[in-house]
Amino acid sequence: MATLKKLFVDQLKDIYDAEHQIVEALPKLVKAASSDELKEAFSEHLEQTRNQIERLESVFSECGEAPARKTCKGMKGLLEEGEEAIKDESAGAVKDALLIGGAQKVEHYEIAEYGTLRAWAEELGLEDAVDLLGETLDEESDADERLTSIAEGGLLEEGVNEEATAGA
Amino acid sequence: MATLKKLFVDQLKDIYDAEHQIVEALPKLVKAASSDELKEAFSEHLEQTRNQIERLESVFSECGEAPARKTCKGMKGLLEEGEEAIKDESAGAVKDALLIGGAQKVEHYEIAEYGTLRAWAEELGLEDAVDLLGETLDEESDADERLTSIAEGGLLEEGVNEEATAGA
Repeated sequence: MATLKKLFVDQLKDIYDAEHQIVEALPKLVKAASSDELKEAFSEHLEQTRNQIERLESVFSECGEAPARKTCKGMKGLLEEGEEAIKDESAGAVKDALLIGGAQKVEHYEIAEYGTLRAWAEELGLEDAVDLLGETLDEESDADERLTSIAEGGLLEEGVNEEATAGA
Repeated sequence: MATLKKLFVDQLKDIYDAEHQIVEALPKLVKAASSDELKEAFSEHLEQTRNQIERLESVFSECGEAPARKTCKGMKGLLEEGEEAIKDESAGAVKDALLIGGAQKVEHYEIAEYGTLRAWAEELGLEDAVDLLGETLDEESDADERLTSIAEGGLLEEGVNEEATAGA
Protein backbone atom coordinates (compact mmCIF):
# COMPACT_ATOMS: atom_id res chain seq x y z
CA MET A 1 0.00 0.00 0.00
CA ALA A 2 1.25 3.43 -0.91
CA THR A 3 2.31 5.54 2.02
CA LEU A 4 2.23 9.28 2.56
CA LYS A 5 6.05 9.27 2.26
CA LYS A 6 5.80 7.67 -1.18
CA LEU A 7 3.15 10.20 -2.29
CA PHE A 8 5.35 13.02 -0.97
CA VAL A 9 8.33 11.87 -3.05
CA ASP A 10 6.08 11.43 -6.12
CA GLN A 11 4.76 14.98 -5.77
CA LEU A 12 8.30 16.22 -5.25
CA LYS A 13 9.25 14.70 -8.62
CA ASP A 14 6.19 16.35 -10.16
CA ILE A 15 7.04 19.87 -8.93
CA TYR A 16 10.75 19.31 -9.66
CA ASP A 17 9.77 18.67 -13.28
CA ALA A 18 7.34 21.61 -13.25
CA GLU A 19 10.08 24.00 -12.07
CA HIS A 20 12.37 22.85 -14.88
CA GLN A 21 9.57 23.44 -17.39
CA ILE A 22 9.14 26.95 -15.95
CA VAL A 23 12.88 27.68 -16.30
CA GLU A 24 12.54 26.91 -20.01
CA ALA A 25 9.37 28.99 -20.41
CA LEU A 26 10.33 32.19 -18.55
CA PRO A 27 12.86 33.54 -21.09
CA LYS A 28 10.10 33.39 -23.73
CA LEU A 29 7.85 35.43 -21.44
CA VAL A 30 10.61 38.00 -20.85
CA LYS A 31 10.92 38.37 -24.61
CA ALA A 32 7.15 38.55 -25.24
CA ALA A 33 6.44 41.15 -22.52
CA SER A 34 6.27 44.82 -23.53
CA SER A 35 6.58 46.72 -20.27
CA ASP A 36 10.01 46.90 -18.65
CA GLU A 37 8.42 46.30 -15.25
CA LEU A 38 6.94 43.01 -16.44
CA LYS A 39 10.14 41.94 -18.21
CA GLU A 40 12.01 42.57 -14.94
CA ALA A 41 9.44 40.61 -12.88
CA PHE A 42 9.78 37.59 -15.20
CA SER A 43 13.60 37.83 -15.22
CA GLU A 44 13.81 37.97 -11.46
CA HIS A 45 11.41 35.07 -11.16
CA LEU A 46 13.72 33.03 -13.40
CA GLU A 47 16.53 33.50 -10.85
CA GLN A 48 14.15 32.61 -8.02
CA THR A 49 13.03 29.48 -9.82
CA ARG A 50 16.64 28.27 -10.11
CA ASN A 51 16.95 28.70 -6.34
CA GLN A 52 13.68 26.84 -5.81
CA ILE A 53 15.07 23.92 -7.81
CA GLU A 54 18.08 23.81 -5.47
CA ARG A 55 15.76 23.81 -2.46
CA LEU A 56 13.89 20.85 -3.92
CA GLU A 57 17.20 19.02 -4.30
CA SER A 58 17.81 19.56 -0.58
CA VAL A 59 14.36 18.14 0.19
CA PHE A 60 15.07 15.05 -1.96
CA SER A 61 18.29 14.65 -0.01
CA GLU A 62 16.45 14.88 3.35
CA CYS A 63 14.18 12.08 2.07
CA GLY A 64 17.21 9.97 1.14
CA GLU A 65 16.27 10.15 -2.54
CA ALA A 66 18.16 11.30 -5.64
CA PRO A 67 16.43 14.24 -7.41
CA ALA A 68 14.31 12.96 -10.28
CA ARG A 69 11.72 14.41 -12.65
CA LYS A 70 8.30 12.94 -13.40
CA THR A 71 6.45 14.72 -16.22
CA CYS A 72 4.10 17.24 -14.67
CA LYS A 73 1.05 17.12 -16.95
CA GLY A 74 -0.64 19.98 -15.14
CA MET A 75 2.24 22.37 -15.82
CA LYS A 76 2.51 21.10 -19.39
CA GLY A 77 -1.10 22.13 -20.00
CA LEU A 78 -0.60 25.51 -18.37
CA LEU A 79 2.49 26.21 -20.44
CA GLU A 80 0.72 25.16 -23.65
CA GLU A 81 -1.79 27.87 -22.80
CA GLY A 82 1.14 30.19 -22.15
CA GLU A 83 2.52 29.44 -25.63
CA GLU A 84 -0.83 30.46 -27.09
CA ALA A 85 -0.68 33.70 -25.12
CA ILE A 86 2.84 34.38 -26.43
CA LYS A 87 1.67 33.82 -30.02
CA ASP A 88 -1.55 35.82 -29.56
CA GLU A 89 -1.99 38.61 -32.10
CA SER A 90 -2.52 41.22 -29.36
CA ALA A 91 0.30 43.62 -28.54
CA GLY A 92 1.51 46.10 -25.96
CA ALA A 93 -0.42 46.43 -22.72
CA VAL A 94 -3.21 44.07 -23.82
CA LYS A 95 -0.69 41.35 -24.57
CA ASP A 96 0.99 42.01 -21.22
CA ALA A 97 -2.38 41.57 -19.47
CA LEU A 98 -2.74 38.20 -21.21
CA LEU A 99 0.79 37.11 -20.24
CA ILE A 100 0.16 38.11 -16.63
CA GLY A 101 -3.08 36.09 -16.56
CA GLY A 102 -1.21 33.01 -17.80
CA ALA A 103 1.68 33.49 -15.38
CA GLN A 104 -0.72 33.78 -12.46
CA LYS A 105 -2.19 30.38 -13.30
CA VAL A 106 1.33 28.96 -13.08
CA GLU A 107 1.92 30.72 -9.74
CA HIS A 108 -1.35 29.37 -8.35
CA TYR A 109 -0.51 25.84 -9.46
CA GLU A 110 2.69 26.15 -7.47
CA ILE A 111 0.96 27.74 -4.47
CA ALA A 112 -1.40 24.74 -4.33
CA GLU A 113 1.37 22.19 -4.77
CA TYR A 114 3.85 23.73 -2.32
CA GLY A 115 1.01 24.14 0.20
CA THR A 116 0.22 20.42 -0.07
CA LEU A 117 3.89 19.42 0.09
CA ARG A 118 4.55 21.56 3.14
CA ALA A 119 1.52 20.08 4.95
CA TRP A 120 2.70 16.55 4.15
CA ALA A 121 6.28 17.38 5.21
CA GLU A 122 4.90 18.51 8.57
CA GLU A 123 3.07 15.23 9.04
CA LEU A 124 6.16 13.30 8.04
CA GLY A 125 8.35 15.24 10.49
CA LEU A 126 10.67 16.49 7.74
CA GLU A 127 11.68 19.69 9.50
CA ASP A 128 14.13 21.13 6.97
CA ALA A 129 11.67 20.39 4.18
CA VAL A 130 8.92 22.31 6.00
CA ASP A 131 11.18 25.39 6.10
CA LEU A 132 12.45 25.08 2.54
CA LEU A 133 9.01 24.45 1.05
CA GLY A 134 7.61 27.32 3.13
CA GLU A 135 10.25 29.72 1.77
CA THR A 136 9.32 28.80 -1.79
CA LEU A 137 5.61 29.03 -1.02
CA ASP A 138 6.12 32.60 0.24
CA GLU A 139 8.10 33.50 -2.88
CA GLU A 140 5.35 32.18 -5.14
CA SER A 141 2.69 34.14 -3.26
CA ASP A 142 4.82 37.29 -3.50
CA ALA A 143 5.37 36.72 -7.23
CA ASP A 144 1.61 36.37 -7.71
CA GLU A 145 0.94 39.62 -5.81
CA ARG A 146 3.64 41.44 -7.77
CA LEU A 147 1.93 40.43 -11.02
CA THR A 148 -1.43 41.62 -9.71
CA SER A 149 0.06 44.98 -8.79
CA ILE A 150 1.71 45.33 -12.21
CA ALA A 151 -1.65 44.56 -13.85
CA GLU A 152 -3.49 47.01 -11.62
CA GLY A 153 -0.81 49.70 -11.79
CA GLY A 154 -1.98 51.29 -14.96
CA LEU A 155 -1.25 48.44 -17.33
CA LEU A 156 -4.90 47.55 -17.79
CA GLU A 157 -5.94 51.17 -18.20
CA GLU A 158 -3.47 51.45 -21.05
CA GLY A 159 -4.95 48.25 -22.43
CA VAL A 160 -8.37 49.79 -22.49
CA ASN A 161 -6.99 52.87 -24.21
CA GLU A 162 -5.44 50.65 -26.82
CA GLU A 163 -8.76 48.97 -27.22
CA ALA A 164 -10.41 52.33 -27.80
CA THR A 165 -7.75 53.12 -30.40
CA ALA A 166 -8.45 49.82 -32.11
CA GLY A 167 -12.06 50.91 -32.40
CA ALA A 168 -13.69 48.23 -30.24
CA MET B 1 -5.37 44.18 -33.15
CA ALA B 2 -6.87 42.13 -30.37
CA THR B 3 -8.62 44.14 -27.71
CA LEU B 4 -9.08 43.53 -24.00
CA LYS B 5 -12.75 42.80 -24.70
CA LYS B 6 -11.79 40.07 -27.15
CA LEU B 7 -9.32 38.56 -24.66
CA PHE B 8 -12.00 38.70 -21.99
CA VAL B 9 -14.47 36.73 -24.12
CA ASP B 10 -11.72 34.23 -25.06
CA GLN B 11 -10.88 33.63 -21.39
CA LEU B 12 -14.58 33.34 -20.63
CA LYS B 13 -14.80 30.50 -23.18
CA ASP B 14 -11.75 28.89 -21.58
CA ILE B 15 -13.18 28.87 -18.04
CA TYR B 16 -16.64 27.92 -19.36
CA ASP B 17 -15.03 24.80 -20.85
CA ALA B 18 -13.00 24.21 -17.67
CA GLU B 19 -16.14 24.28 -15.51
CA HIS B 20 -17.81 21.72 -17.76
CA GLN B 21 -14.74 19.48 -17.48
CA ILE B 22 -14.96 19.83 -13.69
CA VAL B 23 -18.65 18.84 -13.69
CA GLU B 24 -17.64 15.61 -15.42
CA ALA B 25 -14.71 14.96 -13.06
CA LEU B 26 -16.31 15.63 -9.67
CA PRO B 27 -18.55 12.52 -9.51
CA LYS B 28 -15.40 10.40 -9.98
CA LEU B 29 -13.80 12.21 -7.04
CA VAL B 30 -16.89 11.67 -4.88
CA LYS B 31 -16.64 7.95 -5.67
CA ALA B 32 -12.87 7.75 -5.08
CA ALA B 33 -12.92 9.59 -1.72
CA SER B 34 -13.00 7.53 1.48
CA SER B 35 -14.05 10.00 4.16
CA ASP B 36 -17.69 11.08 4.25
CA GLU B 37 -16.58 14.65 4.91
CA LEU B 38 -14.57 14.71 1.68
CA LYS B 39 -17.31 13.00 -0.34
CA GLU B 40 -19.72 15.68 0.89
CA ALA B 41 -17.31 18.51 0.04
CA PHE B 42 -16.91 17.22 -3.53
CA SER B 43 -20.70 16.67 -3.91
CA GLU B 44 -21.51 20.16 -2.73
CA HIS B 45 -18.87 21.62 -5.01
CA LEU B 46 -20.53 19.86 -7.94
CA GLU B 47 -23.74 21.77 -7.21
CA GLN B 48 -21.76 25.01 -6.85
CA THR B 49 -20.02 24.40 -10.16
CA ARG B 50 -23.36 24.07 -11.96
CA ASN B 51 -24.33 27.47 -10.53
CA GLN B 52 -21.00 28.91 -11.61
CA ILE B 53 -21.71 27.75 -15.16
CA GLU B 54 -25.01 29.65 -15.07
CA ARG B 55 -23.22 32.76 -13.84
CA LEU B 56 -20.81 32.51 -16.76
CA GLU B 57 -23.79 32.32 -19.12
CA SER B 58 -25.04 35.61 -17.65
CA VAL B 59 -21.60 37.16 -18.21
CA PHE B 60 -21.60 35.99 -21.86
CA SER B 61 -25.03 37.60 -22.20
CA GLU B 62 -23.78 40.92 -20.72
CA CYS B 63 -21.02 40.83 -23.38
CA GLY B 64 -23.61 40.23 -26.12
CA GLU B 65 -22.13 36.81 -26.87
CA ALA B 66 -23.61 33.32 -26.96
CA PRO B 67 -21.99 30.94 -24.42
CA ALA B 68 -19.29 28.86 -26.11
CA ARG B 69 -16.55 26.48 -25.00
CA LYS B 70 -12.90 26.63 -26.06
CA THR B 71 -10.86 23.63 -24.88
CA CYS B 72 -9.08 24.60 -21.69
CA LYS B 73 -5.72 22.83 -21.98
CA GLY B 74 -4.67 23.87 -18.49
CA MET B 75 -7.67 22.17 -16.90
CA LYS B 76 -7.22 19.14 -19.17
CA GLY B 77 -3.70 18.67 -17.80
CA LEU B 78 -4.85 19.12 -14.20
CA LEU B 79 -7.64 16.59 -14.63
CA GLU B 80 -5.27 14.08 -16.26
CA GLU B 81 -3.24 14.35 -13.07
CA GLY B 82 -6.48 13.92 -11.15
CA GLU B 83 -7.21 10.69 -13.06
CA GLU B 84 -3.79 9.40 -11.99
CA ALA B 85 -4.63 10.24 -8.39
CA ILE B 86 -7.96 8.40 -8.67
CA LYS B 87 -6.18 5.32 -10.06
CA ASP B 88 -3.32 5.50 -7.52
CA GLU B 89 -2.82 2.31 -5.54
CA SER B 90 -3.01 4.15 -2.21
CA ALA B 91 -6.19 3.86 -0.14
CA GLY B 92 -8.09 5.41 2.75
CA ALA B 93 -6.75 8.59 4.28
CA VAL B 94 -3.56 8.61 2.18
CA LYS B 95 -5.61 8.44 -1.02
CA ASP B 96 -7.87 11.21 0.30
CA ALA B 97 -4.78 13.39 0.91
CA LEU B 98 -3.78 12.82 -2.71
CA LEU B 99 -7.27 13.65 -4.01
CA ILE B 100 -7.33 16.83 -1.92
CA GLY B 101 -3.93 17.88 -3.30
CA GLY B 102 -5.22 17.43 -6.87
CA ALA B 103 -8.49 19.23 -6.18
CA GLN B 104 -6.63 22.19 -4.68
CA LYS B 105 -4.65 22.60 -7.90
CA VAL B 106 -7.98 22.84 -9.72
CA GLU B 107 -9.29 25.39 -7.21
CA HIS B 108 -6.15 27.50 -7.57
CA TYR B 109 -6.39 27.42 -11.35
CA GLU B 110 -9.88 28.84 -10.99
CA ILE B 111 -8.84 31.39 -8.36
CA ALA B 112 -6.20 32.71 -10.78
CA GLU B 113 -8.55 32.76 -13.75
CA TYR B 114 -11.54 34.32 -12.00
CA GLY B 115 -9.20 36.91 -10.45
CA THR B 116 -7.96 37.88 -13.91
CA LEU B 117 -11.47 37.90 -15.39
CA ARG B 118 -12.85 40.06 -12.61
CA ALA B 119 -9.99 42.58 -13.00
CA TRP B 120 -10.61 42.76 -16.75
CA ALA B 121 -14.39 43.09 -16.23
CA GLU B 122 -13.71 46.09 -13.98
CA GLU B 123 -11.59 47.75 -16.66
CA LEU B 124 -14.25 47.03 -19.26
CA GLY B 125 -17.02 48.49 -17.07
CA LEU B 126 -19.01 45.24 -17.04
CA GLU B 127 -20.64 45.81 -13.68
CA ASP B 128 -22.80 42.69 -13.42
CA ALA B 129 -19.86 40.56 -14.53
CA VAL B 130 -17.68 42.03 -11.76
CA ASP B 131 -20.27 40.92 -9.18
CA LEU B 132 -20.92 37.49 -10.69
CA LEU B 133 -17.23 36.67 -11.17
CA GLY B 134 -16.51 37.93 -7.64
CA GLU B 135 -19.17 35.60 -6.16
CA THR B 136 -17.59 32.62 -7.90
CA LEU B 137 -14.09 33.71 -6.88
CA ASP B 138 -15.21 33.76 -3.23
CA GLU B 139 -16.75 30.29 -3.58
CA GLU B 140 -13.54 28.88 -5.05
CA SER B 141 -11.46 30.38 -2.23
CA ASP B 142 -13.88 28.94 0.34
CA ALA B 143 -13.75 25.52 -1.35
CA ASP B 144 -9.95 25.61 -1.23
CA GLU B 145 -9.97 26.50 2.48
CA ARG B 146 -12.51 23.77 3.22
CA LEU B 147 -10.22 21.19 1.60
CA THR B 148 -7.26 22.46 3.64
CA SER B 149 -9.25 22.14 6.83
CA ILE B 150 -10.38 18.59 5.93
CA ALA B 151 -6.73 17.67 5.27
CA GLU B 152 -5.57 19.24 8.50
CA GLY B 153 -8.47 17.97 10.60
CA GLY B 154 -7.04 14.59 11.36
CA LEU B 155 -7.03 13.13 7.87
CA LEU B 156 -3.26 13.41 7.46
CA GLU B 157 -2.59 12.04 10.92
CA GLU B 158 -4.57 8.93 9.96
CA GLY B 159 -2.51 8.81 6.79
CA VAL B 160 0.68 8.70 8.78
CA ASN B 161 -0.75 5.95 10.97
CA GLU B 162 -1.56 3.97 7.88
CA GLU B 163 1.96 4.52 6.71
CA ALA B 164 3.29 3.15 9.98
CA THR B 165 0.99 0.15 9.56
CA ALA B 166 2.32 -0.35 6.06
CA GLY B 167 5.80 -0.49 7.56
CA ALA B 168 7.41 2.49 5.80
